[in-house]
Amino acid sequence: MKLIAFDADDTLWANEPNYIDVKLKLCEMLSHHIDEETLSQRFYDAQIRNLAVFGYGAKSFMLSMIETAIELTDGAITGSEIQQIIDTGRKLLDFPVDVLDGVGEVLETLSKNFDLMVLSKGDLFDQESKIARSGLGHYFKHVEIVSEKNEQTYQRILHKYKVQPADFLMIGNSLKSDVLPVVHIGGRAIHIPFATTWAHEMVTDEQLTGKSFTTLGSVRELLELLENVKKTA
Amino acid sequence: MKLIAFDADDTLWANEPNYIDVKLKLCEMLSHHIDEETLSQRFYDAQIRNLAVFGYGAKSFMLSMIETAIELTDGAITGSEIQQIIDTGRKLLDFPVDVLDGVGEVLETLSKNFDLMVLSKGDLFDQESKIARSGLGHYFKHVEIVSEKNEQTYQRILHKYKVQPADFLMIGNSLKSDVLPVVHIGGRAIHIPFATTWAHEMVTDEQLTGKSFTTLGSVRELLELLENVKKTA
Repeated sequence: MKLIAFDADDTLWANEPNYIDVKLKLCEMLSHHIDEETLSQRFYDAQIRNLAVFGYGAKSFMLSMIETAIELTDGAITGSEIQQIIDTGRKLLDFPVDVLDGVGEVLETLSKNFDLMVLSKGDLFDQESKIARSGLGHYFKHVEIVSEKNEQTYQRILHKYKVQPADFLMIGNSLKSDVLPVVHIGGRAIHIPFATTWAHEMVTDEQLTGKSFTTLGSVRELLELLENVKKTA
Repeated sequence: MKLIAFDADDTLWANEPNYIDVKLKLCEMLSHHIDEETLSQRFYDAQIRNLAVFGYGAKSFMLSMIETAIELTDGAITGSEIQQIIDTGRKLLDFPVDVLDGVGEVLETLSKNFDLMVLSKGDLFDQESKIARSGLGHYFKHVEIVSEKNEQTYQRILHKYKVQPADFLMIGNSLKSDVLPVVHIGGRAIHIPFATTWAHEMVTDEQLTGKSFTTLGSVRELLELLENVKKTA
């Protein structure tokens, strides 16, 4: 193994709960206009519609919240209410980063034997800020923030770092972004599910058929699993 | 010379004019509330205030426009008007990329002899999209989008690519981001001013005192200037 890459959000620290929390606050704000289920559906539609233009991340999420609120109130929402939405969304950019149990210990051990990388998708500024706030930055030799994690992205990264797929391990909570594309290009992937997964990251059983990867219950199990794996030059 | 890096916005293609245009549309929309000068000042204040939380780029610009509009109307602006602001701002994410005169020809020639890099700050998704829309991507061996271009950033990039400062040339329109930090770490910088510069990128004469760099009138002059520069391994 030459390079071990970790996804960041919901792999190294909790992220999705903050987004769910902000979305709930939006539901409360708009509760006199619309029920939670309809809002959730329309907000998801706005997010997916905006993904191609805005990309992932907190600012994109905020703009989609604003658009959804305008749409669901037929434009009647006031500027002051929109400012409340922005203020709520702003928390996504500076919440205290809650490092998941065991992560520090595992990174401490693995960083002695392997080159570690953060390989995360999303908003560059936002992700860099979370890495800094996590206090985990020093364990990582490389940080790569990308706009999308698909096969081409992984191939580009491996080419850039002169690493063969067989010498690459990706660890993350998303089957869609962290596991399947890596398996498809001949790399190794470990899936560590997180409590909640954004609908957009879901995959079907069919997509998993015939794919080989390991699923762990916790990041702590990595140490045992990688105990006999040697570093390749 | 081992590595030649180009700034992107207002160096390879026109960018600032699109932002100025969108800001003018915001002024028009709010002209019954506020004069252009006051709006410009308050908008600039909002941008600078938000920079530390939102970073650079179109989405950050849109959120600052919305906040300014809410602030200047004491919250009275309607949801429909804010949707108009978003729709206007959205153009910043998909305007046709207008490659500056001579850039294609210069990149074509230089890419035969040197490793070229795009080294740009801003929103990752936005910058990648502009590179794709420009049709210039194939001239560049490397693309690095960073959240800020200061001395630490340049040192990190040079370390990553194993390039000595003396073997590095940075070309760009911003004295603050493209020229001064590079000169400070011992690299070479070429300044190609663009017609308009965002106030935040301005530097004082004092900051320039004793600094050595070349200013060109157009990107075309690069070819002559670099004619006798050899590639180092």
